[in-house]
Amino acid sequence: MPNTQIQVGILGATGFTGCELVGLLLRHPRAEIAWLSSESQPGTAYGKVYPQYLGRLPPQVEKMRSFEDVKATVPDVVFSCLPHGASAECAAPFLMNGKTIVIDLSADFRLKDPKAYAEAYAHTHPMPERLKESRYGLCEVHGGEIKGARLIANPGCYPTSAILPLYPLIRDGVVSPDGIIIDAKSGVSGAGKKPTETTHYVMANESVTAYGVGDKHRHRWEIIEQLSLAAGRKLDLLFTAHLIPMERGILSTIYCDLADGKTAALAEACLRKQYEGSDFVRIREDFPRTGDVKHSNFCHMKVYQPAGGRKLIIVSVIDNMVKGASGQALQNMNIALGLPETLGLA
Amino acid sequence: MPNTQIQVGILGATGFTGCELVGLLLRHPRAEIAWLSSESQPGTAYGKVYPQYLGRLPPQVEKMRSFEDVKATVPDVVFSCLPHGASAECAAPFLMNGKTIVIDLSADFRLKDPKAYAEAYAHTHPMPERLKESRYGLCEVHGGEIKGARLIANPGCYPTSAILPLYPLIRDGVVSPDGIIIDAKSGVSGAGKKPTETTHYVMANESVTAYGVGDKHRHRWEIIEQLSLAAGRKLDLLFTAHLIPMERGILSTIYCDLADGKTAALAEACLRKQYEGSDFVRIREDFPRTGDVKHSNFCHMKVYQPAGGRKLIIVSVIDNMVKGASGQALQNMNIALGLPETLGLA
Amino acid sequence: MPNTQIQVGILGATGFTGCELVGLLLRHPRAEIAWLSSESQPGTAYGKVYPQYLGRLPPQVEKMRSFEDVKATVPDVVFSCLPHGASAECAAPFLMNGKTIVIDLSADFRLKDPKAYAEAYAHTHPMPERLKESRYGLCEVHGGEIKGARLIANPGCYPTSAILPLYPLIRDGVVSPDGIIIDAKSGVSGAGKKPTETTHYVMANESVTAYGVGDKHRHRWEIIEQLSLAAGRKLDLLFTAHLIPMERGILSTIYCDLADGKTAALAEACLRKQYEGSDFVRIREDFPRTGDVKHSNFCHMKVYQPAGGRKLIIVSVIDNMVKGASGQALQNMNIALGLPETLGLA
Amino acid sequence: MPNTQIQVGILGATGFTGCELVGLLLRHPRAEIAWLSSESQPGTAYGKVYPQYLGRLPPQVEKMRSFEDVKATVPDVVFSCLPHGASAECAAPFLMNGKTIVIDLSADFRLKDPKAYAEAYAHTHPMPERLKESRYGLCEVHGGEIKGARLIANPGCYPTSAILPLYPLIRDGVVSPDGIIIDAKSGVSGAGKKPTETTHYVMANESVTAYGVGDKHRHRWEIIEQLSLAAGRKLDLLFTAHLIPMERGILSTIYCDLADGKTAALAEACLRKQYEGSDFVRIREDFPRTGDVKHSNFCHMKVYQPAGGRKLIIVSVIDNMVKGASGQALQNMNIALGLPETLGLA
Repeated sequence: MPNTQIQVGILGATGFTGCELVGLLLRHPRAEIAWLSSESQPGTAYGKVYPQYLGRLPPQVEKMRSFEDVKATVPDVVFSCLPHGASAECAAPFLMNGKTIVIDLSADFRLKDPKAYAEAYAHTHPMPERLKESRYGLCEVHGGEIKGARLIANPGCYPTSAILPLYPLIRDGVVSPDGIIIDAKSGVSGAGKKPTETTHYVMANESVTAYGVGDKHRHRWEIIEQLSLAAGRKLDLLFTAHLIPMERGILSTIYCDLADGKTAALAEACLRKQYEGSDFVRIREDFPRTGDVKHSNFCHMKVYQPAGGRKLIIVSVIDNMVKGASGQALQNMNIALGLPETLGLA
Repeated sequence: MPNTQIQVGILGATGFTGCELVGLLLRHPRAEIAWLSSESQPGTAYGKVYPQYLGRLPPQVEKMRSFEDVKATVPDVVFSCLPHGASAECAAPFLMNGKTIVIDLSADFRLKDPKAYAEAYAHTHPMPERLKESRYGLCEVHGGEIKGARLIANPGCYPTSAILPLYPLIRDGVVSPDGIIIDAKSGVSGAGKKPTETTHYVMANESVTAYGVGDKHRHRWEIIEQLSLAAGRKLDLLFTAHLIPMERGILSTIYCDLADGKTAALAEACLRKQYEGSDFVRIREDFPRTGDVKHSNFCHMKVYQPAGGRKLIIVSVIDNMVKGASGQALQNMNIALGLPETLGLA
Repeated sequence: MPNTQIQVGILGATGFTGCELVGLLLRHPRAEIAWLSSESQPGTAYGKVYPQYLGRLPPQVEKMRSFEDVKATVPDVVFSCLPHGASAECAAPFLMNGKTIVIDLSADFRLKDPKAYAEAYAHTHPMPERLKESRYGLCEVHGGEIKGARLIANPGCYPTSAILPLYPLIRDGVVSPDGIIIDAKSGVSGAGKKPTETTHYVMANESVTAYGVGDKHRHRWEIIEQLSLAAGRKLDLLFTAHLIPMERGILSTIYCDLADGKTAALAEACLRKQYEGSDFVRIREDFPRTGDVKHSNFCHMKVYQPAGGRKLIIVSVIDNMVKGASGQALQNMNIALGLPETLGLA
Repeated sequence: MPNTQIQVGILGATGFTGCELVGLLLRHPRAEIAWLSSESQPGTAYGKVYPQYLGRLPPQVEKMRSFEDVKATVPDVVFSCLPHGASAECAAPFLMNGKTIVIDLSADFRLKDPKAYAEAYAHTHPMPERLKESRYGLCEVHGGEIKGARLIANPGCYPTSAILPLYPLIRDGVVSPDGIIIDAKSGVSGAGKKPTETTHYVMANESVTAYGVGDKHRHRWEIIEQLSLAAGRKLDLLFTAHLIPMERGILSTIYCDLADGKTAALAEACLRKQYEGSDFVRIREDFPRTGDVKHSNFCHMKVYQPAGGRKLIIVSVIDNMVKGASGQALQNMNIALGLPETLGLA
């Protein structure tokens, strides 16, 4: 990288992930926001939408621009915080300019298999020809493929919490690829900014509910594809999401089977080896709280084997807005550009 | 009252106050729900909207009806949970049938002065000719006028918490009618069921905000009219509302001046006398929490005089959905019909 | 029962379950509180501890008494809200008076097997000779054995949410007794009234944590004993509890296997048959929220079979303080005395 | 400052303000933590107490030391997060070494008047001889006196939110020094880490309560002293604190009188002039939420004059743990050392 500041554009900056990203970028010593785009409120000052940024952005950045207005610019990096479908479409001009690195926080480039995408997202893939070059940006697992990439698919929040522990365990044959159950609990920010009955305070507060039960949640396809990659063969699993009354955080409780001859100690050793020296992953001796990783890019996990069986229980926690979205996106930028991974994230 | 069950209709049953009222009526030993109306979802089962009532209502009640469909019925009591404006309009046929008691939870009949109404609610009063006969249903203050009334205006939530302590103190000349400041804090249910940016969990949670500051909140006109009545002359006051991250509850912190020669002890004595034997008002020795009155029809209050001045501070708490809305509405029904005030509310 | 009011004593009234029980009893048309006992604060007014009850109890009841002071009284019913160990001990004189019905909210009489008790509670059982006569008070499952019983063990909160759906499914051979996983989520009131690091607002709020993971939680022994009864043979299972940031409510997500030849439709039919006409159990078509049963004695549940396997997922919700504790205790009283089950609970 | 890293010690690191400070220091590009002390848990790893810091501190720092063990060290800066009384005592050796800058987050050096201290804190001042040299570290108001200071008293959380708007308004004669009422609302972290009945989740959640009403809160003395300084004469005021169900944030609603001939426009102009170019203070056109400043060192404020009177209402918000404690402490370090004020805080 040259020594000048990295120019960054954000597509769809008014959503929660855009807001989180702006905050992280303001702390990043090498990045500079070039523009923020919004289709719903172009021309509006960002500080009107998120008063925490009042007077913290230069005037020409603070005033949000439309996609039409920014699509011919050539920033070093573009983060897309747009919804799936729209995201691939708006990423196109930046992918084609031959210079900009695109980091897509939507689901558009996460699944290599366009048929799985069509099944999960209920529409055909908008740009299947780019799937080959896209990199799945789970930094601690696929970091080697991210350096120098031009198109990075930032992982989903639930998948990040589940794949980080399961990928190495399955890849190394410590855990059986069959019969995995992931029971995940998430804060409400994961439901997005749009006011709905579900996100109404009186409905979400003092209540817990299950959704996307068993085989219905979109993130399940993403977890299956990644863990099948780890297993070297197609696997299947159950995933259930729960909405709990807090703003941010995901805790995944994972039930799986130790492979023949394997023990919890071997499982822990496998994870310690994978994440030795990792900036952001910690193997815990006690069970982690999501509070331990709130507003941070960390993932904490613990493995435990109950007496009298081959079941292994893994508990893994992240902040869905940071490691599960904007923090990992920034980590991907750092890796892609060859910067220290922790820049702006420590 | 005859010994048969009291037939009750609820207009606009899908809002939060309607939901609360249904729950209270199911516990009332003398009341029977005749119908529930909804303009937005007629024909829908009530248990679809509020699953807590699944299988707890007879089929013909569970299926909500339109206003058109119920307007010619003659229940003993109709509660209107409709928004202001619409409420007066839909109350009309029941007022005209010569039998039904109408208890209006909207603001339509609270203010005797239609000019104040027009100022507060930004439209002319829909039915000024009925204002004379309507009774302001603050039970512990105006109970005597409610017995036998045909049209009862159920007080607003903030006004209930503020007028209960201030009315007797001003009426008895213990507190000066001038310079009163009411700083009130409310849970989010007061903002209603419609999903908005303000009621989104991520915005409302872990945050407090002021709104309707000083002279802007609609409930201020209601408090002014009632306390002017107590004072025997027009007064003015400041009222500021705050939204705090909880479902229900209002705490009002009231700053006022003791009248010449009056003391905190006299203020407390005045309140104890007013509420001696009251089923629902308690004068506390320590400062009350809203948690103390959650899901109940009680109002707890305490007076305190800081050293070195004439200021009196009053802290008053209610549940905005019960004493501040549906509970007091039911209390009004009990009083109007000559039943024990606590029926269904203890 | 005679037509006079049922005299009720509460041992250990200052805990959360005691508080909830007092509120329910105040609404019960046939019950009258005879005394409240407290070992930590005898002589203190109950309204000092729980201001919601200020002025709602007769003076001789409001002033709490010591166990020594009440042990020779002979109320119709004694509820023990004491901790395990102490509970059996203090129940003894009432069991021996030949008249009082004892409903124990602690774990002391829940397990028929004193060895399981010793394992789960880390001390020998204080009164194994009474285990034979005690009845496990899961009303909708064991109601028939409760009528006329003198010693009723009120079920634990987690067990109530798990056994209600699983008992009939296992008993009728619809679901395999092997390999069951229960992933449960509870509000903080379940942790009791004592201030600890875990229950500190700043620790519990905006965080979720797993505890009693896999094979460690005391309630697991209770679930195993009951479901083994249903299966007609000893079974084993995994149970994991989670603490989530809300006051009350439990949601259990249960993963189990359909027996050979069985389907989700048969599972649902089995539950509908079991709970047909039940006052408090509802089989849902959509997934329930704990908010749907908040402050009520209901249990809502739904079964769902994901595509491509034999797994059945059951989601079940209760209010841990009502159906999971004091509400079910009162329901047990109603049943034991031959009163309508819903008295004071509708 | 030399170009080497600034060596920092933290006394009493296990409290909430210590925890917050460690997080901020880890992001500060020029600071390095030399040691963390704890009287309650010396020898314990900091990551055991706060798992978010696991593996983020060098081993010799992570293991907490006792005061005895660190008192002879000479770091560039010592932050004291100890309780009042103990704080002054433990600061002594560092004040005497002639080099270390002491930034005290307790109340020990905030009040210049030891009599006011004795009244507010109910014991005589432990070190009155140092009061003369201590600087009250309200950065935006007293920044000029902080540069080069050796002993800085970090302001209280409530005082920060109240004095920032009121100091310039009173100093410039825009607002009358008499009759000020401050009605403040705070999250629970302000109550400290010790588990108590008040901080129990079930008590603090879904409830609001008033405390330190009128003339009782310790922070009132601090606000009075500072505003008397602004007024050039002794003034008096009312201050009431409220505990609301959130982790962090303070909103102060301030009621005061415009001086003769002054207007809200002049008040706003006074504040805009005072905070023009300020890194952390914003004058808002709409009313701020505490959510707008969560996890930041900002203070947002708005002035408003209701119609028909001379009252001015000011709403001011901060994060009590950042601008109200550890963030402002770090800002004080930056100023004292001549570093950019925003270092580690942007």
